[in-house]
Amino acid sequence: MALVDLSKQVALGVDIGGTNTKFGIVNHRGEILEKGRMRTDSFEHPEDFIEALYEAVSPHLAKHSSQKQFDGIGVGAPNANYYRGTIEQAPNLRWKGVIPFAELITKKFGVPCKMTNDANAAAYGEMMFGAARGMKDFIMMTLGTGVGSGIISGGKLIYGHDGFAGELGHTIVKPGGRKHWSTGSEGSLEAYASATGIAITAKKMRAEFPDSMLNDYPEEAINSKVVHECAKKGDPTAIEVFRYTGQKLGEALANFVMFSSPEAILLFGGVIKAGDFILKPTKLHMERNLLPIFRNKVRLVFSELDEADAAILGASALVWEK
Amino acid sequence: MALVDLSKQVALGVDIGGTNTKFGIVNHRGEILEKGRMRTDSFEHPEDFIEALYEAVSPHLAKHSSQKQFDGIGVGAPNANYYRGTIEQAPNLRWKGVIPFAELITKKFGVPCKMTNDANAAAYGEMMFGAARGMKDFIMMTLGTGVGSGIISGGKLIYGHDGFAGELGHTIVKPGGRKHWSTGSEGSLEAYASATGIAITAKKMRAEFPDSMLNDYPEEAINSKVVHECAKKGDPTAIEVFRYTGQKLGEALANFVMFSSPEAILLFGGVIKAGDFILKPTKLHMERNLLPIFRNKVRLVFSELDEADAAILGASALVWEK
Repeated sequence: MALVDLSKQVALGVDIGGTNTKFGIVNHRGEILEKGRMRTDSFEHPEDFIEALYEAVSPHLAKHSSQKQFDGIGVGAPNANYYRGTIEQAPNLRWKGVIPFAELITKKFGVPCKMTNDANAAAYGEMMFGAARGMKDFIMMTLGTGVGSGIISGGKLIYGHDGFAGELGHTIVKPGGRKHWSTGSEGSLEAYASATGIAITAKKMRAEFPDSMLNDYPEEAINSKVVHECAKKGDPTAIEVFRYTGQKLGEALANFVMFSSPEAILLFGGVIKAGDFILKPTKLHMERNLLPIFRNKVRLVFSELDEADAAILGASALVWEK
Repeated sequence: MALVDLSKQVALGVDIGGTNTKFGIVNHRGEILEKGRMRTDSFEHPEDFIEALYEAVSPHLAKHSSQKQFDGIGVGAPNANYYRGTIEQAPNLRWKGVIPFAELITKKFGVPCKMTNDANAAAYGEMMFGAARGMKDFIMMTLGTGVGSGIISGGKLIYGHDGFAGELGHTIVKPGGRKHWSTGSEGSLEAYASATGIAITAKKMRAEFPDSMLNDYPEEAINSKVVHECAKKGDPTAIEVFRYTGQKLGEALANFVMFSSPEAILLFGGVIKAGDFILKPTKLHMERNLLPIFRNKVRLVFSELDEADAAILGASALVWEK
C-alpha cells in the first residue's frame, strides 16, 4: 500500500444556492485555501453552469497543482440526491427534472464527485470542522428564507432509503394551520419558523395591535430583521412575534428529539440573529413537550461556522468520507 | 481462526412486559427451538426475577446443551438502554430507578447480555426474520395499549446519543390536544392512536351521537375491539372513531417519513385488527401531508410475526449483531 500524505490532498467544495454558488478548495484540516463565487441563476442549462464553474475554479486549482493532489469534488445543492448524484425537481433552481449532476461534473473535471443536499452538507461541515466536532448524534436546523435540516445519527447523515431524508422544515407543526406559499401544505414548520414565516406572523400581529412599532414600516419592509429591531426597542408585539415563532419551533424540536435523541440541536441562519427573543421560547416549548427522560439533556447551540463555509466544508468532506 | 458452525449457535431472547415475560431459545435462522413464559409483576426485585428466569430457562437450555453452543442473551424491555444495559425508570415495571440488568443477567447465566427496548427488539426481529427482511430503512409502530416504535436507518436501529431514541408514540400530533393519562403531555400520538386512546375517542363520540350502537355497551366495555365490531355492522360513529384515529396517525406518520424517509412503515399490535377502517384514513392523511417527493413511495405494511415472537427474535438477534 502506498503511503498517503494527507497534508497534500485537497478537495473542491461547492455550495449551490438558487441565486449564487460558492466554492472553496479545502484541505483535510478544513482550511479553505481558495474561495470564489458565481451566479447560479444566469445559466439555463446545468452543462453551461458546469462549464462556467470549471472556468472559475481552474485558476485556483492551478495555483496548487504542483503541491497538492486534487481528490475530488463535493457538491451541496437543493434537492440533491446522495445515492444517485442527481439534482431532482429543485423548485428554486432553473434546471428542471432529474439532472445527473455528479456525472456531468466528473466528465468535465475528471475527478469523482459526491453530492448531498445543501442542509446536509452544512450539517456534515459542522460535524467535521464546526460546533458539532466530536458529536455523533445531532440535528442541524438552518433557519433562513426557508427551513432546512440535516440529521446526524451515529456519526452519519441520515439519508433514508431514497436519499431524501431530513426534510424537517416540511413537517407539520400545526395540523390545518397556515398554508405554505409554495408547497401548499398546512401548518408546516417552515411556514412559521423561516424568515418568510416570521414576516407573515409580524404582518398579522401588527394588524391586531395598532400601537405596535411594526406599524411604522411599509408592508414590504416587514422582515425578521425589522421585527428584531422593534423587539430590541421593547415593542411587545415584535417580542410576541418571536415568542410565537419560538413556540412553534420548540414544539417541532421536541418531536425531533423524541425521534432521534440527539445530544444537541445546532441552529443556523439569519433567523437566529434574534438571539434570546427566539431562543428562550424555543427552549421552553421544547422542554415542555418532551418526555421526562429527554428533558434538560439536549443543548441548543448556535453554529460556529459562516453559513456558506459550513456547506463548502461539508461538501468537500464528502469526498473523503469513508 | 477457528471455524464457527453457525447451525450450532443458539441465543436466548427475552421479552419483558409489565405483566408477563416471554422467552425463547433461537437459532441463526430465526427458529424458536424452545419457548416459555412467566410472570413479571410477581417479583419485587429484579434479582428475584432473574433467579426465577434462570430456573425457568435452565431445563430448556439443558435439552440442547450437548448439541448447541449458547452464545448469549438478548433482552427487550420497557425503558431498556442499549448502551448501558440498564432498565431506567420504567413506569410499568415494579423495579424502580436504574437497574444494571445486563450485568445481573451475565452474573447469573455466565454469558454476555445485550439489551434494547421492547419496540426496538420487535423492529429488529422484523428486519432479521419478518416483513422487513432485506429492508434497511423502515419504521415499526406497535399500536397496542400504548404506542411504541423502533426506527431502522441504514440497516441499524437508531438509538441516539443516550440510547433512548424512537419514542414516536410521545411525539405531539395535536399541540394543546388531549392530555395523556400518564405522561401529562398534551396531544401526543399515543393519546389518540393507542387502544386506550381509541376507547377515549369512542366514549366521547358516542356521547355526541345517541343513536350510535356504541351506546348499547356499558362504559367499561368500550374498547377498540367493540368499536371494530360496531364499525363492521356499519355504525357511522364507530367508523368515524377509526377515521379520526387514522387521521391523527397518518399526520404523525407523514412527519416521520419526512424525518428518515423509510421505504415502509410496519404496523403491529391489537389496534391494526381494525384493518381498512384505520388503514385507509391513515394512508390518506399520511399522503396528504407529505411533500410531493415522498408521495406514493412509502408502503404501510402489517407485521408478519406474532407480537411476542418478534420481540424474542429481535432480542436474540442482538446477541449476534455486528
